[in-house]
Amino acid sequence: MIIDCHGHYTTAPSALQDFRDAQIARFGDSGLPAAKPPTISDDAIRQSIEENQLKAMRDRGADMTVFSPKAVGMGHHIGDETMSLAWARVCNDMIHRVVTLFPDHFFGVCQLPQSPGVPIKNSVHELERCITELGFVGCNLNPDPSGGNWTGMPLTDRSWYPFYEKLVELDVPAMIHVSGSCNPNFHHTGAHYINADTTAFMQFIEGDLFADFPDLRLIIPHGGGAAPYHWGRYRGLADMLKRPPLADHVMKNVFFDTCVYHQAGIDLLFRVIDIDNILFASEMFGAVKTVDPETGHNFDDTKRYLDALDLPEEDRRKVFQGNARRVYPRLDAALKARGK
Amino acid sequence: MIIDCHGHYTTAPSALQDFRDAQIARFGDSGLPAAKPPTISDDAIRQSIEENQLKAMRDRGADMTVFSPKAVGMGHHIGDETMSLAWARVCNDMIHRVVTLFPDHFFGVCQLPQSPGVPIKNSVHELERCITELGFVGCNLNPDPSGGNWTGMPLTDRSWYPFYEKLVELDVPAMIHVSGSCNPNFHHTGAHYINADTTAFMQFIEGDLFADFPDLRLIIPHGGGAAPYHWGRYRGLADMLKRPPLADHVMKNVFFDTCVYHQAGIDLLFRVIDIDNILFASEMFGAVKTVDPETGHNFDDTKRYLDALDLPEEDRRKVFQGNARRVYPRLDAALKARGK
Repeated sequence: MIIDCHGHYTTAPSALQDFRDAQIARFGDSGLPAAKPPTISDDAIRQSIEENQLKAMRDRGADMTVFSPKAVGMGHHIGDETMSLAWARVCNDMIHRVVTLFPDHFFGVCQLPQSPGVPIKNSVHELERCITELGFVGCNLNPDPSGGNWTGMPLTDRSWYPFYEKLVELDVPAMIHVSGSCNPNFHHTGAHYINADTTAFMQFIEGDLFADFPDLRLIIPHGGGAAPYHWGRYRGLADMLKRPPLADHVMKNVFFDTCVYHQAGIDLLFRVIDIDNILFASEMFGAVKTVDPETGHNFDDTKRYLDALDLPEEDRRKVFQGNARRVYPRLDAALKARGK
Repeated sequence: MIIDCHGHYTTAPSALQDFRDAQIARFGDSGLPAAKPPTISDDAIRQSIEENQLKAMRDRGADMTVFSPKAVGMGHHIGDETMSLAWARVCNDMIHRVVTLFPDHFFGVCQLPQSPGVPIKNSVHELERCITELGFVGCNLNPDPSGGNWTGMPLTDRSWYPFYEKLVELDVPAMIHVSGSCNPNFHHTGAHYINADTTAFMQFIEGDLFADFPDLRLIIPHGGGAAPYHWGRYRGLADMLKRPPLADHVMKNVFFDTCVYHQAGIDLLFRVIDIDNILFASEMFGAVKTVDPETGHNFDDTKRYLDALDLPEEDRRKVFQGNARRVYPRLDAALKARGK
């Protein structure tokens, strides 16, 4: 079985975005009517998935996708907490409908109702609803709800701890994933995403988060940002900062996905990062939706790069399935309940 | 000849930092006396270089270093424009003394008197002084003088153009190099530096800077940030944004250095980036000053990684010398005048 641990519902029927647009308009002009939750038929959802993600999964050879709302759409920097909560609920309910319609192909991961300056404990309720009521297996945690202004505190700050306590209690991981950027310096998928990955990794080196939460599991997407390419720098910085070696200090709790869109990058990732810390993922359809003229295949068809590694069967099994089942125990339990 | 294009005077006599400390203290308390420029003897400078950079250059096999003030020390986010100017002048004069004392081993690159919200054209005068009076060959341009708050505009914004016009007129390149971070999210060398490199590269993809300045040459240090590792992402994003291929749109004008502190990273850099776009550099003594326990050599002894590539002689000559002489024409002219 092949599990893609990073997919977003970027192909949702347009009524979802219409709701968001109405919500944003209302926030700017309280004289406008309140946004009404979108009415979307099962058929429209089916079509949006079958023609897109499911088709690509079949074409490319993935069986399951760990699926979450469109990341750039989360927009935690827009509006206020009430608006973020309403939007998160609508988006998560959409993911739940996808999972319900395609139980053999999708597991849900939720968006959180984060908002700049709002304590992260206020996101605990929606996390619990999604995990315990909707059967989701994880969440996307935005390390910068200010959308590129980075006005909050590092992920190792104690203000985040109430949320980590709940993650550990529920035994679910978080993917560290920013949303859109309102800072003109940062293109969202080209700079903000990758910078956030790199930033989070360095925060974990500086801090002591996993001494306090030895059972916390965090996924840094997009191949770990710049970390694997600069692995020597990070090993050296850990040493200079008198931290333990990365293998003990960070890599028992942190996992990188394979959303790296060329062979040389994937080769590097597997050369420097332990096989137990890598999760197969494509992020499709995400940052780059086009065909690489150099290969004739989609940039984000990452399975091809992994296949070309010609991994030993045991390693292949870890990356495509075993590691994901270990990092997402609720996904593993659900699969086992189905005899898989 | 082997030219290291990225070295900082991180070993300057302590009187330099004393001046800076006094300057900062005075900024916070106008009742304090004005900071007096440091008195440092030639012998103290000689010693600070001979025992450090020059020794390492001899040990490691580099002949020349393109040398600039300590990057994290620039601190453009501290104080105001007047203070930045006084500090830049003192730092640049120190570099000039190093170059004067060791003309066979160092060329100067200047710090600019940038300050948040201050037009970049106000840095033109100090640039001209350093290039035309002190014989420097380039400058370090900070894309975020706010020190991790990123309150300014992207490097492709027209507000930067007066400075680029002067760079082209003087025929000198700029290295895009941030300084310290006052944002607790960003460790300076572990996150802010690498993020700035990645951010600058993506800004160049989004913009049209080099159509407007076909003769402008910019160096992105630290191996280009995350760009080479995510080269597929950037090629794909250029395509999605309807930009020309990177080779035409960016890579005629942008160069990456080799400050990547492990073999796998260097291997990737040389695999994906054209040999004409790579400049040998170590950044010593910079971000990582320790010995890699895996190799028994200093992390920043990057020449070892390049030697291990076993490059063809023509490529080796480009990376160690030819590309630098092309990117820094004033360095080339000075060497030629010495018959080198």
